[in-house]
Amino acid sequence: MALVDTGAFLRDLKELRQIGKFKTGVHRPTYSPQDMESRHWLMGKLAECGLEASMDGIGNVFGRHQGSGPHVLSGSHIESQNEAGWLDGALGVVGALALARAGLPVDVCAFADEEGHFSIGFPGSRSIIGDLPETEIDGAKDRTTGTPMRDALAAAGLAGVPRMGLEEGRYKGFFEMHIEQGTQLERAGLRIGVVTGIVAIWQFRIVIEGQQDHAGGTTMAERRDAGLAAVRLLAAVDAAFPLLCGERTVWTTGRFRLEPDAPSIIPGRAEVLFQFRDIEMPVLERLHAALKSLVQESNRRERCTARLEAIRLDTPALCDPAMMTALEGAAEALAPGVWTKMPSGAGHDAQIISQKLPVVMLFVPSIGGISHHWAEDTKEEDLALGASVLGEGVRRFLAR
Amino acid sequence: MALVDTGAFLRDLKELRQIGKFKTGVHRPTYSPQDMESRHWLMGKLAECGLEASMDGIGNVFGRHQGSGPHVLSGSHIESQNEAGWLDGALGVVGALALARAGLPVDVCAFADEEGHFSIGFPGSRSIIGDLPETEIDGAKDRTTGTPMRDALAAAGLAGVPRMGLEEGRYKGFFEMHIEQGTQLERAGLRIGVVTGIVAIWQFRIVIEGQQDHAGGTTMAERRDAGLAAVRLLAAVDAAFPLLCGERTVWTTGRFRLEPDAPSIIPGRAEVLFQFRDIEMPVLERLHAALKSLVQESNRRERCTARLEAIRLDTPALCDPAMMTALEGAAEALAPGVWTKMPSGAGHDAQIISQKLPVVMLFVPSIGGISHHWAEDTKEEDLALGASVLGEGVRRFLAR
Repeated sequence: MALVDTGAFLRDLKELRQIGKFKTGVHRPTYSPQDMESRHWLMGKLAECGLEASMDGIGNVFGRHQGSGPHVLSGSHIESQNEAGWLDGALGVVGALALARAGLPVDVCAFADEEGHFSIGFPGSRSIIGDLPETEIDGAKDRTTGTPMRDALAAAGLAGVPRMGLEEGRYKGFFEMHIEQGTQLERAGLRIGVVTGIVAIWQFRIVIEGQQDHAGGTTMAERRDAGLAAVRLLAAVDAAFPLLCGERTVWTTGRFRLEPDAPSIIPGRAEVLFQFRDIEMPVLERLHAALKSLVQESNRRERCTARLEAIRLDTPALCDPAMMTALEGAAEALAPGVWTKMPSGAGHDAQIISQKLPVVMLFVPSIGGISHHWAEDTKEEDLALGASVLGEGVRRFLAR
Repeated sequence: MALVDTGAFLRDLKELRQIGKFKTGVHRPTYSPQDMESRHWLMGKLAECGLEASMDGIGNVFGRHQGSGPHVLSGSHIESQNEAGWLDGALGVVGALALARAGLPVDVCAFADEEGHFSIGFPGSRSIIGDLPETEIDGAKDRTTGTPMRDALAAAGLAGVPRMGLEEGRYKGFFEMHIEQGTQLERAGLRIGVVTGIVAIWQFRIVIEGQQDHAGGTTMAERRDAGLAAVRLLAAVDAAFPLLCGERTVWTTGRFRLEPDAPSIIPGRAEVLFQFRDIEMPVLERLHAALKSLVQESNRRERCTARLEAIRLDTPALCDPAMMTALEGAAEALAPGVWTKMPSGAGHDAQIISQKLPVVMLFVPSIGGISHHWAEDTKEEDLALGASVLGEGVRRFLAR
């Protein structure tokens, strides 16, 4: 049953870890010399495993299986955040390589810039599904250095190189292995997460305007306290959302700023950043309606004006039930009792690919939940188990 | 009955307005050439009115009545905030001068640095009641320029000049006229406020510690959201305080900061600056006890730790009932139906002097409530009425 050569898998991972090494992590920003070195390293590995390796005009590295299908697609991204962890996307790429090494009919892809160095959002996976216009590339800049994406592509030797698209009808689905980037598995003593979907983020800005006044000279009856109105609104959300949410919905107030932010001045303005996440559209819509009602109610009740602005209203990406069933069976076979189904709270290339193909993801635990930091890590036995479950899951899915 | 020469009073005010003129206001920071010019101008005016004028080692300008008592003390401060209004403290100083001009047995004082340029709090009035150690002066610096207070005093010619104290037993009380610095009089169509006391400010910092986490990867059940705990605590305050407060209590959350203040990160820390003000000690103590209970309740209920730190717990300065009665009688005689009793929400020299003498204050309206800004103003007829009510009040108080 153990199709995957976990020894080779771990050796590959550790080899890749040396490219752009930073402390115990890596520094491989998109199109940097280190990133390009890792892409060329991957092409060599793909060829070694008998795949036809190529890199396209957006930097996507692709390994095409030479045998007959039906095929699956698997992969993730290979660049890292600045001074970040060694696993993250690299895990899913090397996991896909392990599938190829096991002789499974898999095409391997390392999508470019999932980490968003160029701030246009998933250029690699969007390009491969045909959803990245040239004009977006023209306008993109590195958010750290300001370098235009066109210049970065040229410096990486990718100017004028054609971009590839997914071959219609070739794939039964897309598998992506990733670290959890949270602590749910670790806290529950679990080793594998079968992902049910990638949650949508609905992000809002709530601006409340009142009247700035002296905290000594203005009676409570006269006040138009924007901060107090914001507290009341958020307390109302705190009371209402638990009655309306789904099983795994989360909601977060990440910012609560008062102006002028002084001890003896009644705030004239409050700015709140509020978001909720869920994988079910009806839940998202129900919470949005409730939020709008609570803001309306605030405007009826308070002497301040609250304005609700939607910043992003994503679509959730649900994982494919048959692919989940295959991974669940593999998990129960290889890790009985220590796996769970869970949504992904963070974004991944799989949510883009899900627009064209059935997708599924598999999570392994993150030690201490650390992510996007060079200290990110996962136990070696969990990495190996993840690769084995992935391999067995792909086998089961293809064998249906 | 109209003892006060309101024409001379307004002329004096307008003369003083020319010293350090800034737009329609003045710029007379403590011990600046403009401030010292205004102090010397005042000494000349005091002498003109037959008072023995002097300036002491902290810059207090004093005019001593040459006749027999019983005496009252009256005045305020003459320096201004930076680029601020022409009235503020100057009104109470020139009002006291008008009492002297009317032949009332009054000593006039312009206390130094009520505006707190040197950040040690009321040095002039504290010095005159014997509550300002030399070491405090040694350590004080101008909060705008960083100049040591000793250097500023020396530059103003006050190095080595002795500081004066109030003559024991000389005064029946202290009268201070001031602008309201709020809009209560204006909004109610009133022209005179008889001050019942100067509120105490009880200022607190509430620090709530939770656990910073990813807003996507952490379930609601796992979270230790410091911001949410702060919202719940402030909502509880909002519910409890109206049941416990006094008639004119005010409470204000001026600051509400989350860390790290990012849309997709659960706040690990919240810092709240919360204060309440009242003139009654039992009310202040009751609210403090309630706040402590609510913080305890938060620590029982939440998975975060809230810590309450008292930053200041002032003592309220109550105005003298007999002095209030005198001013009320004067107000009803000269401004029937358009005066009220009210607390002062801001601090004044009178609260310092109240430690030694009975005090009372009289407010005139501030147009639009503007204060500590060059646009600060009061209608000329309200200024004149204020001086007349002050004069009649002092006459009535002395005649008891």
